[in-house]
Formats: sequence, C-alpha cells, structure tokens
Amino acid sequence: MALSSPTIKLSNGKEMPLVGFGLWKVTNETCADTVYNAIKTGYRLFDGACDYGNETEAGQGVKRALDEGLVKREDLFIVSKLWNSFHDKEQVKPICKKQLADWGVDYFDLFIIHFPIALKYVAPEVRYPPGFFYEDKKVELSKTSLETTYQAMEELYDEGLIKAIGISNYTGTLLLDVERYARHMPHTLQIEHHPYLVQQDLIDLCKSRNIAVTAYSSFGPQSFLELNLQKAHDAPVLFEHKDIKSIADKHNKTPAQVLLRWATQRGIAVIPKSNNQSRLAQNLDVCSFDLTEEEIKTINAMDRGLRFNNPLNYGVPIPIFA
Amino acid sequence: MALSSPTIKLSNGKEMPLVGFGLWKVTNETCADTVYNAIKTGYRLFDGACDYGNETEAGQGVKRALDEGLVKREDLFIVSKLWNSFHDKEQVKPICKKQLADWGVDYFDLFIIHFPIALKYVAPEVRYPPGFFYEDKKVELSKTSLETTYQAMEELYDEGLIKAIGISNYTGTLLLDVERYARHMPHTLQIEHHPYLVQQDLIDLCKSRNIAVTAYSSFGPQSFLELNLQKAHDAPVLFEHKDIKSIADKHNKTPAQVLLRWATQRGIAVIPKSNNQSRLAQNLDVCSFDLTEEEIKTINAMDRGLRFNNPLNYGVPIPIFA
Repeated sequence: MALSSPTIKLSNGKEMPLVGFGLWKVTNETCADTVYNAIKTGYRLFDGACDYGNETEAGQGVKRALDEGLVKREDLFIVSKLWNSFHDKEQVKPICKKQLADWGVDYFDLFIIHFPIALKYVAPEVRYPPGFFYEDKKVELSKTSLETTYQAMEELYDEGLIKAIGISNYTGTLLLDVERYARHMPHTLQIEHHPYLVQQDLIDLCKSRNIAVTAYSSFGPQSFLELNLQKAHDAPVLFEHKDIKSIADKHNKTPAQVLLRWATQRGIAVIPKSNNQSRLAQNLDVCSFDLTEEEIKTINAMDRGLRFNNPLNYGVPIPIFA
Repeated sequence: MALSSPTIKLSNGKEMPLVGFGLWKVTNETCADTVYNAIKTGYRLFDGACDYGNETEAGQGVKRALDEGLVKREDLFIVSKLWNSFHDKEQVKPICKKQLADWGVDYFDLFIIHFPIALKYVAPEVRYPPGFFYEDKKVELSKTSLETTYQAMEELYDEGLIKAIGISNYTGTLLLDVERYARHMPHTLQIEHHPYLVQQDLIDLCKSRNIAVTAYSSFGPQSFLELNLQKAHDAPVLFEHKDIKSIADKHNKTPAQVLLRWATQRGIAVIPKSNNQSRLAQNLDVCSFDLTEEEIKTINAMDRGLRFNNPLNYGVPIPIFA
C-alpha cells in the first residue's frame, strides 16, 4: 500500500497535502525520475520554482506518471513560484504561462511570490533562471511595488491559471500590508521554519487569518551545508541534537521524522526533499505518530532566531529580514 | 554659553539637529516648562507626536520662547507624527493641520508615520489621542495601505506643510517597498536603537539610501520601566552595565552620555528626554568627546536583538516585527 499525506483545507476550500516534495536543489539529471518515484511513493504535492531551474524535468516526471495512469492531474498539487525578476505587472502572466508550459500543465494549484523583492526584468531568452545577479555581480532593482505584483497574481487567480495564491519570505509587517490591499487574501505563506527559527508570532498571525503555513528547510542548517554557508556549518546539526535524538529514539523514528512531525502536528505543511528512496518514504510517513505536548515544547525551546536563507548571506544586499 | 547640537544634512538639504528632546511621556503639567527650559538649555529639535498627548502644551513652551525672543521659528526643528488611526487618505491632511494648530506653528520640520499600522479612524472630538484600543479593548484595523498613507504624506510635503517625511518602526523589508512606490524617499527613519537592539543591517540600508536614522529609547529598558513592561524589568539596566560604566569612567562622562555618544558618533540622531535640568544639559553635551573604535565595538557586541517597543508587548495583536 502506498503512503499518503493528509491534507489541510485552504481558506478557499481547496485541499493541500500537508507533506509534499520540495524540488529545491534537485539536479536536472535526476529530477524527472525523482518526481516520478516520489509520485509512486505517494507524494502528491511538488513544490517547484522558476529559480530551481528544473521545472521542465519535473514536468517530465509528472507526465510519465500521468501517462502510466499512476495518478490523474487532479490528484496532484503542483506548486510553482514567481521569481523576483518577473514582478513587473506585465511580466507576471507571460512567465506564469511559460512555467505552466515547462511543467506541461494548464494550471498551478498554488503559485507563490518567491521573495518580497522586485528585480529588473530579464527575458527568458537572455538568462533563465535569472537568479539574483546581473552583470558585474550587481543586483538591479525594479520599482514595481509588492501591491502591484500581488494584483497581477490575483488576476491569474481570477482567470483560473492558478488555484491559490501564496507568498514566501514575507514577514508579519508585510503580510499586514497585503491584508490592506488584497482582494483575495493569500492562501499560504511559505517560510524558513525549524527549531532554530520558530517564528511563533508570524505563525500565530497566519493562524488568525486562516493562512496555511508551509515550512521550508525543516532540517535547519542541513539544507545549507551544500551551499557552503558558513553560518550553517557553525550551527549544531539538528539530526544529532540530543533532544531531537532522544525524542526520535522514544518513538522509534528518525530525527528527520521528528523534525517534520513537529511541524505537521501543529498544522504546518512541510516540503522535504530526498534523493534516497527509503528516506523519501520516511519523510512522507510523518503524520502516523504523535509527539507529546512536552516534546513539542522541548523542541520549541530550541529557538534561537537563527535564519539561514537570508539574501544577505549570499551577498545580495537586500535586507528583507532587517 | 548655551550648549548646542551639531546637525546632519537630510537628503533634501535640510539640516536636522543630531541631538533633540523627546516628548514621549512628558506630562501635560510639566510639558510647557520643560520645552521652554530645553530651548533655554540649547535644544532645538523637539520630537513630538499626537500619541504623546502633549502637543498643545509643547506648543505653549515654544510660544513662550519665541515671544521672549530666545529663538526664532526657523531655529527650531519641530517633529510630529501621524497616528495609526489617521492613515486613511482623507484624514492625513486634516489631522496634520490640527496638530500644527495645537503646536501653534504653520509647518512641521519633519512629520513621521508613527507605525506601519492602519487603525480605524476616530474623530478627535470622540477620543484624542486615540491610542490603540477601541471599545471592549479591541483593536480595529483600517484597510488603507501603507502606500496610500505615504502618498498623502507626500502631498503634505508638496504643499509645504511638512518640510521632511519620516517613517518610524518600519523594518527593512517595508522600507524597500517604500522605495518602490515613493515619489519622495523618506528623509528619516526613527527606530528603537540601543546596545541591546543594534539593527546594523537596517542602519546600513538607511545609509545606502541616504536616510537619516533617529534612535529612540537610547537607554534601552530604562524607558519602559515606568510602563511596567516585564521584559524591561528583566533586562540588565544599561546605566549599570560594567562595559558602559567602565567606558563612562574613562571619559569622565555619565553612562547616559556614553550611550548617546555611541549613537551620535555613528551619525545616528538621538532624542532623549529628561525632567532634570542637569541631565537635560548632559544629554545635549554628547558630541564633545569621542569614543574609541574599540569602545564602539565593545558596545556593539552587547546586541541581543532585545526589542521593548513591540505592540505585542502591550497586548496589541499586531505583529509588525514578526
């Protein structure tokens, strides 16, 4: 029997799997097979982005599964993200359509503003994915406001090209401003979230507005080691943290499963990735056991406000978390 | 000879005193005399706000000094702030004019959006200053976006009712959005800033945009003790901190003077208040000695991301710093 994830209901009634597969850093060579295998394993949500540079390959994996009749399109929950350089009003729809074509689907279940950062437009023919840097390692800003970009997202939603609107890397103060100008409130917020960066106030705000929260980098520093981020190397590995290990042992689960369950048990969606078949299955099996209230509190207490995915850490001089 | 403060040049060429007098928590009974005495002592900048509830009295102090010929209007730098409940587009100009009338002046040198928070309008006849809370201790939000309010501020600037535009309690990510929609960039940002809350990334952002930074609560927890804020009682008093005391002793200054000099020496304006004549003079005399680079580094290293002036700390469920 294949594993499966429970779903949560978004504010527009749409069901979103609580556990999905994150495509960040999945290589082009392995991406199609990885997606196909993940579907076979029971994954239904795929969290992609222009910036991950593998949407075409992810789409190939999806197509194979659809062609073989493993799943139908409506069984899947395909997520993509608007990159910073497409914030200009007139660029949002064309790039969304390009990304849909890359995936080979005609709608996204969720489309997310990747960062509250507007960069100068780069045509896909010139550079794709465009990344943060322009010539001479400069970063070039666009003057398009977040409200303008959000309105363009709402138009995609009105047209049915996207079935839910998401934002990512927004802080509470920005979300409060979105609330002032939105016709359709965002359905989800995706943030860095792990025991070293709990962000309880932000999570509480989302809860009060019925906005689903998706955690990325659930394993904390782990995701950033391969990027050679010094800050990640300096932080104690969560998989070897004594509190996490002891809780894992008690439940006969892996530390990774405990970290994911800590989120899902509190209603926070997760999107781990793995290239390893057994971990792929383990990561999906994170709603079949419960942590005690005490264990959750112990993990909450590990908070140290430690953020890894800050543009400043990559030499991008845009202090969105300052 | 009276003391005086050096000035810094704002991006529009206007000169702003680096040391001013903050009117927060100055009582109505003492406010007129305090302002008058502060002018006599050499203060030229007065940092007021609707919310402080003492603008009429502050204006009386100013009038007395003007009437006696101690100063001329153009010698003074009068600052006021737009309260949260006046963010609606059509309310900005009327309330600014009321506040000007309260002060008895016909322009503000600087008018600041007090918080990135839009609350439901309350007529001055109904409740003034209106504060955060409505009936049943509820907080009622307005849907006016920060951009809309900012545009209304720009109109005041265009009309000459205010000579500079300020924002306060904005984080970096909000400031980056202001930059996208502003016709006139903000001239100043006012933030909580003390050795326990250094906010270097935000200060660097302002520097890169030629936005002057004004520090409030330069003495850290001190300002919040009288508000019975538990967090302030729990934090070690800065005036008794061994590093601050030792630096103060070395320079034969008070710990307060060291804390203010730490800011002003880095080009950050300060607005201490005091009801005591000798401290009034001491606080103004904080540009006549220099800390060493080493001493500044020592103070910087006291940073612990400890914020006191967070609406959440007062039971206001608006997480602008989440």
